[in-house]
Amino acid sequence: MQTNAQALLLSSSNCHGFSLLEFAKQEICSFLETRNVSELVFVPYAQKNYDDYTKKIKDAFTPWGFSVIGLHTYSDPAAAINSAKAIFVGGGNTFLLLKTLYDNQLVHLIREKVITGNLLYIGSSAGTNVATKSIHTTNDMPIIYPPSFDAISIVPFNINPHYIDKIETDTHKGETRDQRIEEYMEMPHANPVLGLREGCILHVNGDSLVLKGVAGAVLFEVNVSKKVEYPVGADVSFLLNYAKETC
Amino acid sequence: MQTNAQALLLSSSNCHGFSLLEFAKQEICSFLETRNVSELVFVPYAQKNYDDYTKKIKDAFTPWGFSVIGLHTYSDPAAAINSAKAIFVGGGNTFLLLKTLYDNQLVHLIREKVITGNLLYIGSSAGTNVATKSIHTTNDMPIIYPPSFDAISIVPFNINPHYIDKIETDTHKGETRDQRIEEYMEMPHANPVLGLREGCILHVNGDSLVLKGVAGAVLFEVNVSKKVEYPVGADVSFLLNYAKETC
Ligand SMILES: [Ca+2]
Ligand SMILES: [Ca+2]
Repeated sequence: MQTNAQALLLSSSNCHGFSLLEFAKQEICSFLETRNVSELVFVPYAQKNYDDYTKKIKDAFTPWGFSVIGLHTYSDPAAAINSAKAIFVGGGNTFLLLKTLYDNQLVHLIREKVITGNLLYIGSSAGTNVATKSIHTTNDMPIIYPPSFDAISIVPFNINPHYIDKIETDTHKGETRDQRIEEYMEMPHANPVLGLREGCILHVNGDSLVLKGVAGAVLFEVNVSKKVEYPVGADVSFLLNYAKETC
Repeated sequence: MQTNAQALLLSSSNCHGFSLLEFAKQEICSFLETRNVSELVFVPYAQKNYDDYTKKIKDAFTPWGFSVIGLHTYSDPAAAINSAKAIFVGGGNTFLLLKTLYDNQLVHLIREKVITGNLLYIGSSAGTNVATKSIHTTNDMPIIYPPSFDAISIVPFNINPHYIDKIETDTHKGETRDQRIEEYMEMPHANPVLGLREGCILHVNGDSLVLKGVAGAVLFEVNVSKKVEYPVGADVSFLLNYAKETC
C-alpha cells in the first residue's frame, strides 16, 4: 500500500494516571510542530453535545499552544476539511461517528486528503476505529445503523482500541475481549487486528508504523492461533503490506 | 400491541453456578410440556460450527426428554420453520445471527408465526437480542454487516442480555455497560431497554410479560434518568404498550 499518510492513532483519550490526552502530549506536540501546524479542526461527531465536547478538547490543547475549532461550527464541513491542515477525531460512539461522517460525505474526502499527505490525522478511540479499514472491531454498542462498516482506511487493517485481556469478572459469562476478536477473526472478510492497550499510540509516517506512548499493543492475525505482543517502540510497518481482496 | 406470542427470552445459556441452560430447566420444561411440544428446531446461526453447537444443545435437552434438530440440516430452512412447533435460537454473535436469518429470509416468517401463536420461541443471549425490536443493544462485536439492525420484534422494546452494572476494572477507561446503554437512550430512535441479568428469563405469554429465573432485570426508559430494578416474579407487561413510531 503506497501512502503518504501522517497520523497518530490513540487507543483512547483517557489513560489511568493521566489527565485528558496528557499521556499523548509529547507525541501530539512534536507531530504537529515538526509539520508547522498550530490549528486543529476537531470532529466531535462521536458524541451528542458538539459544543461541550469541543470545549473539553480545546481546554486540553490550548495550554499546549494549539487552537481548536469544532467542525460543526462550519456551514460546509467538506470545505472545512478541504482547507484544514490537521484534524482531531475524538472518541465516543463509533457507529454514531461513522454514520455522521457518511451523512456529511466526509469518509472518502478524508481518506484522499490523508493518503496523499495533505491532511494530518489524529484520532482517539472511536476516532481511531474509523481511521482503519473497518469498524468491525469497535467495542461500542451499535446505537445507530451506518450505511457501511467500511471506514476511512488510512491503514489496511483493523484496530481494537482500549484493548484489555482481563475478563470483566470471574463469574460473568459474557465474552472476553479476546473471544470477541476471535469471533471476528473467523469471518472470511477478517483483517489483522491490532489491539492498542490504553496509553498506546500508533504513529503512521508514510510507510512506517511505530508504536508510541506508554503502553504496547497485541496483534491478532488470520490463521495464526496465538496473539503476539509488541512493546512501545516496536516497528509494525509490515502491517502495511496487508491488502485483502475486498469481499 | 396485540400478540399471541409465547416465548422465553433468556439472558444467557450460562449462569454462574449452573451447567449449560440448567438455571432455566424448570421454565423451559414447563413451557414446552404444557403446550405438548417435545421437539425443538435449533437455530445455530450465531456461531460458526453448526454441528458442534447443535450437539452441545442436544446434549443439554436430551436428558430433559426433548429432541433437538439443527435448522441447518434442512435443505429448506423456511419450510422447516413453517412446520416447526418450537424453536430455540442460541447465543454467539448477534450480528452473525441476524445477518444469517436475513440471508435465509427468516426474520419476517418467524415474526408472523410467533405473533400469531403458531410457533414457540426460546432464545438465549444473541437469540434473545434478535427476538426484540432491534439489535442496537447487543454487547457483541459487529463482526459482520447485517442488512438492518431491525430484528424479529416479538417484543416492541430492546433487551440487553448479560446485563451487569459492575465496571470491568477500576483503572480501565472503556465505557461501563450503563454508559453504553445511555448512549443508545440519547438516540431519537431509542426504545426502552430491559437489561436481563445473567440467570433472568423474560416469559412472554400473549399480553403478559413476567420475569422468571434466578436473577432480575433493570429497565432503562427514554427521558427517565434513573434505571429501575425489577426482581424475579415482577410483572412487566406494561412494556407491551410501548409502540414507537418507526423512524
Ligand atoms: Ca466508545
Ligand atoms: Ca455474544
